[in-house]
Amino acid sequence: MINASCPIPISQFDKVTLAHGGGGKLSQQLVQNIIFHYLGNDILNVGHDGAMFEISGKRLAFTTDSYVVQPIFFAGGDIGELAVNGTVNDLVCCGAKPLYLSLAFILEEGFLLQDFEKVVISIKNAANKANVKIVTGDTKVVDRGKGDQIFINTSGIGIIDDDLHISPTNAQTGDVIIVNGNIADHGITIMSTRAGLEFETQITSDTAALNGLMQHVFETTKNIHVLRDPTRGGLASSLNEIAQASSKGITIFEDKIPLIEETKAACELLGFDPLYVANEGKILVFVPENEAAKILEVMQQHPLGTNAAIIGKVTSENTGMVRLKTQIGSHRIVDMISGEQLPRIC
Amino acid sequence: MINASCPIPISQFDKVTLAHGGGGKLSQQLVQNIIFHYLGNDILNVGHDGAMFEISGKRLAFTTDSYVVQPIFFAGGDIGELAVNGTVNDLVCCGAKPLYLSLAFILEEGFLLQDFEKVVISIKNAANKANVKIVTGDTKVVDRGKGDQIFINTSGIGIIDDDLHISPTNAQTGDVIIVNGNIADHGITIMSTRAGLEFETQITSDTAALNGLMQHVFETTKNIHVLRDPTRGGLASSLNEIAQASSKGITIFEDKIPLIEETKAACELLGFDPLYVANEGKILVFVPENEAAKILEVMQQHPLGTNAAIIGKVTSENTGMVRLKTQIGSHRIVDMISGEQLPRIC
Repeated sequence: MINASCPIPISQFDKVTLAHGGGGKLSQQLVQNIIFHYLGNDILNVGHDGAMFEISGKRLAFTTDSYVVQPIFFAGGDIGELAVNGTVNDLVCCGAKPLYLSLAFILEEGFLLQDFEKVVISIKNAANKANVKIVTGDTKVVDRGKGDQIFINTSGIGIIDDDLHISPTNAQTGDVIIVNGNIADHGITIMSTRAGLEFETQITSDTAALNGLMQHVFETTKNIHVLRDPTRGGLASSLNEIAQASSKGITIFEDKIPLIEETKAACELLGFDPLYVANEGKILVFVPENEAAKILEVMQQHPLGTNAAIIGKVTSENTGMVRLKTQIGSHRIVDMISGEQLPRIC
Repeated sequence: MINASCPIPISQFDKVTLAHGGGGKLSQQLVQNIIFHYLGNDILNVGHDGAMFEISGKRLAFTTDSYVVQPIFFAGGDIGELAVNGTVNDLVCCGAKPLYLSLAFILEEGFLLQDFEKVVISIKNAANKANVKIVTGDTKVVDRGKGDQIFINTSGIGIIDDDLHISPTNAQTGDVIIVNGNIADHGITIMSTRAGLEFETQITSDTAALNGLMQHVFETTKNIHVLRDPTRGGLASSLNEIAQASSKGITIFEDKIPLIEETKAACELLGFDPLYVANEGKILVFVPENEAAKILEVMQQHPLGTNAAIIGKVTSENTGMVRLKTQIGSHRIVDMISGEQLPRIC
């Protein structure tokens, strides 16, 4: 009966695999073939980081994310801080000023109340820093062995600036792509913690709320086409999604992408391509070339944008594809990741 | 350090227990001593089913719930339908017209995609029936043994009718309490499924979206003081919360509370008090006595209110307490449940 009503094959799998949550091709298939297939509507189909709709003449953004990162405490942050910052950033990527968050916990029986308290304090501090209010919540408990310490869902509401019109479908030929700093630090922090690795200089998660930084950018210009925070699946997956949604090509320049030496070395050691490693405090900004210099300047003056750089451009050829111009001048295709690279990274 | 900053003792437990999620005293303690203690603000502190705030002159309601019910498929519904209806009902209890829902899945590795598809179809049908749109979502996957098939979070946004002023603090002496039908069916359905029991007449979950029913009530009168859906912890816990929030007493009449024979028998067999058993399609309506008759009539004409009844009243004495007038005319105190009665019921 079910199959009869669903003509689209759900790839070769009949069970959920970790790769379905990795932010790559299998995630995309699951979302397209089941979720969008049944639940699609004009708002959901935009495929943005958040929904955008109008209520009594005001455009609002609304977004949700669950956080299942393991370990829950890591260098530079924890699951609580991530849950606030991640949802704040999804609102920012809609061009919204984040206002209110919901907060829902799924706790595993046996989770230490002291650790729970630490997470809640971290949520409080992150919410204060991002200037958002936690306004509603829920707490559920599941039996031991049916959860993993703590899972958090935050949903968020923000007001979209009347003059901002941001959409993943809106990348335009000639746009330049700016990123606000070093990539891959979050994912590498998590993976090196899991692997028990220690580096001479400690790499820390870049988790941060970007509404403060982006407020300065929004005050500088409203002429912004696309915003995206490259979390799960990293820079490569986000750029592929935008190239596909906009039917444009994207070229990025290897030597322009900010990446600290320690993270680069750790990526080599662990066998990861930094382009696919998750970030939690980075944003990709697509703007017309003539806006780029002043945005870059504004970003670099902010603590969360010190290492901001122009890393690529939008082209009319190679539509739907991302190409990397390597340091030696050759080009290679940067495909969407097919399976999981880093499960439970956020 | 943590303890130094938290002078409130977290009861006698140092770990999360199933009872912390049961909707009773321990749940309340956890929420008060940790969540409200750190995150409290003017909106959160209202302690409503949802947050209420104004955006550009319009009052909005915003709510969140995670659903961890086990088994995920049960007589009369499934986790997907529950996730839509429960969040719709929380918005209704704020006096809001539900508009938009978010939808976040935490899937366990190994969960059958066919079952996932069934749940998504059920969400689609429930959303259509309740006339709400799913507008944004998220899907995470956790390793086998770190989740339990599927957890769902839905958050929701609705617009509050300008003339409705509903709050759990708003119960007034002389108010009568109406419920829209038979209690305890949802909890007993889940528990008898878990216990492997079969009854001659099958009891089914009452899961339903109540915005259609309540729209008729809102059109009848705006003079409504409190609305509450008695889910986790059942009728008794919801009434206790309202008695405490309003600093009023509540008296309910045992012989007026709608309860089908099969559910009553199953409660006796399983050792549960139906007053504490969860409902997923019931609403408590507190109104001045002179409004009650017409509301009751309107409710009884709707399929989800056929068995609506006046079950109690608000008193100025016995503040903060709920008293049951039994069928033989004596009174007993109906306390808040202290631990879990039915874990993972929603």
